[in-house]
Amino acid sequence: MGLPNHFDLIATDGTARTGKLTTPHGVVRTPAFMPVGTSGAMKGLHWREVRDAGTDIVLGNTYHLMLRPGAERIAALGGLQSFTGWNGPMLTDSGGFQVMSLAQLRKVGERAVTFRSHIDGLSVELSPERAVEVQLLLGSDIAMQLDECVRLPAERGDIERAMQLSLRWAERSKRAFEAAPEGYMLVGIAQGGDVPKLRRASARGLVEIGFHAYAIGGLAVGEPQSVMLAMIEEVAPLLPMDRPRYLMGVGTPEDMLEAVARGIDMFDCVMPTRNGRHGMGFTRFGQINLRNARHADDPRPLDEESPWPSTRGISRAYLNHLVRSGETLGAMLLSEINVAYYQQLMADIRQAIAQGSFASFSERTRAGWARGDIVPR
Amino acid sequence: MGLPNHFDLIATDGTARTGKLTTPHGVVRTPAFMPVGTSGAMKGLHWREVRDAGTDIVLGNTYHLMLRPGAERIAALGGLQSFTGWNGPMLTDSGGFQVMSLAQLRKVGERAVTFRSHIDGLSVELSPERAVEVQLLLGSDIAMQLDECVRLPAERGDIERAMQLSLRWAERSKRAFEAAPEGYMLVGIAQGGDVPKLRRASARGLVEIGFHAYAIGGLAVGEPQSVMLAMIEEVAPLLPMDRPRYLMGVGTPEDMLEAVARGIDMFDCVMPTRNGRHGMGFTRFGQINLRNARHADDPRPLDEESPWPSTRGISRAYLNHLVRSGETLGAMLLSEINVAYYQQLMADIRQAIAQGSFASFSERTRAGWARGDIVPR
Repeated sequence: MGLPNHFDLIATDGTARTGKLTTPHGVVRTPAFMPVGTSGAMKGLHWREVRDAGTDIVLGNTYHLMLRPGAERIAALGGLQSFTGWNGPMLTDSGGFQVMSLAQLRKVGERAVTFRSHIDGLSVELSPERAVEVQLLLGSDIAMQLDECVRLPAERGDIERAMQLSLRWAERSKRAFEAAPEGYMLVGIAQGGDVPKLRRASARGLVEIGFHAYAIGGLAVGEPQSVMLAMIEEVAPLLPMDRPRYLMGVGTPEDMLEAVARGIDMFDCVMPTRNGRHGMGFTRFGQINLRNARHADDPRPLDEESPWPSTRGISRAYLNHLVRSGETLGAMLLSEINVAYYQQLMADIRQAIAQGSFASFSERTRAGWARGDIVPR
Repeated sequence: MGLPNHFDLIATDGTARTGKLTTPHGVVRTPAFMPVGTSGAMKGLHWREVRDAGTDIVLGNTYHLMLRPGAERIAALGGLQSFTGWNGPMLTDSGGFQVMSLAQLRKVGERAVTFRSHIDGLSVELSPERAVEVQLLLGSDIAMQLDECVRLPAERGDIERAMQLSLRWAERSKRAFEAAPEGYMLVGIAQGGDVPKLRRASARGLVEIGFHAYAIGGLAVGEPQSVMLAMIEEVAPLLPMDRPRYLMGVGTPEDMLEAVARGIDMFDCVMPTRNGRHGMGFTRFGQINLRNARHADDPRPLDEESPWPSTRGISRAYLNHLVRSGETLGAMLLSEINVAYYQQLMADIRQAIAQGSFASFSERTRAGWARGDIVPR
């Protein structure tokens, strides 16, 4: 409680919200999508392209960066922004999720999680305090508390234990964050798996502690979309209206549309870049597999009405050729096209909310996805 | 003989020359370096970056393009420029060199070379006539005759046989090229390995046939630089002054400086992009291995006086991190940095020749490479 608020709610439309979040490195328009620059780089994109695509804020992975090149090194080089050349807002995760998915021999204790680095096998300890310290060294505008994320499906007992531990870590994280310079933010993460009662308890506990913003974690980890949306509906109403809400690791364009409708303000996902590397292009017509032979002779672009030059100006035939030949340029172009589509979608969502027409916008957007791709010639 | 000339010699300085070559898709300033866009893409670079780096003309590989996506398909899509979006001059090789290095079960006969595609194993026949036809289908501004290139060291008998075959193919190529639209060019290729007498015979034979331009092939295939330079010295004086001369597959910045001094006008090489993918950066201080640990904490750029933004503005520490982490962005940045360095070198060479100061420019440039990289902090 009593933490300064850097979020301005501009308009609401039903439960959907649009606003702006002011960080030390600039303003983030919400709803916001954060492309993921895992190790201090966005796979297949120059930072100038990330920016030009309409990105306000990007996400960096604490786990990767603390192992290589190291938080102290990045701090000595002036922080993540100066190190990478991305001169805008950055959010970093706490490292907890990657410890669970990438590290070997991990052991979760009350005090900290210990694990072996997947890079050099060295033993590393990550406590809530160290996670905050690392993120402050990185200079990230928005830091996440360390939490324990349980993969679904899971036993209720395991879910509850991880949720309670995450709450105790939330409290310790907040104390550690008292060292942060003004304007920087810390986010508490609601856990509780797919159990409504645990989700509510987690949310209430976090609000009692008080954070700059609130995240919903532990979703998009294998459960059906309906479960994810139900958990948002449990948590969101318990969070303060005037603070940003971030749904971690989500998702598809449709996931985001549903989550915005339920009051979510921020998203991150590797999907636009990862799917781009696998030959997939996101468009108004849904996701298109450029590897498909039907594109091989098609001189038409992915979407001739797109505001993004690569989406409007590059032929399906050329993209098909690049993908089938394994040319890096195919991954570069599709990653760029996909990030641009995600950001255009967020821009359209913000505008629709501001105009009070989010419901009809959602319906139109869904109809486009459902109609599917243009007909082959 | 009698073929129209599209080359204007602007100035000479000793044996070095600067000029401009007018192609259907634009003007090429010489000496010119052609980055290699093997399969219709430049590895790690967007076409806009290739252009911005100062590139007038790029090279495409007929062998790759005829196998995938296919010459007829590219023709139906409007030619290479329209297909790829590189709206500038393009030179294509004849496919002969890649047949020798990549294809399986190849058989060189008088009429044609037959081989199995390295992509799908299908049997393909490439004759001098088909090589010209394919290049006209691609719409390349400058086509190369099919030749047979012998890897050095080789027996004199083999070298002579391949050289004579290449001459006969040169004649057939020229006849086939009579179908070409106005303004397009065909290049004869001098072979002859490391045997001066055979090189001279090859050059004289080609000049007698008459081409828009002349290439020296079969070098930079494993022989010492001194042999390469000696062969240029045999061939160049026999070529008409008013036609462009192209040294195929070359090379390092130093190779190019030496070759320009001996009257060469055009180069192509995969080195800037390939070495870029392997963590190497070309600079005024020579070639720098960014993987080296001495860069890990160095906030300085590769060369703070470079006119190229990425060379001047991105820290060695960040490049080191990207290379060590295997991030695509490392390869993208270094490929871009290297192509820009090559093009800057060519621009400086052209200016020095025009000013009659090529000798002193060469000396200064060499001194920079010899001095080596800046001292670690």
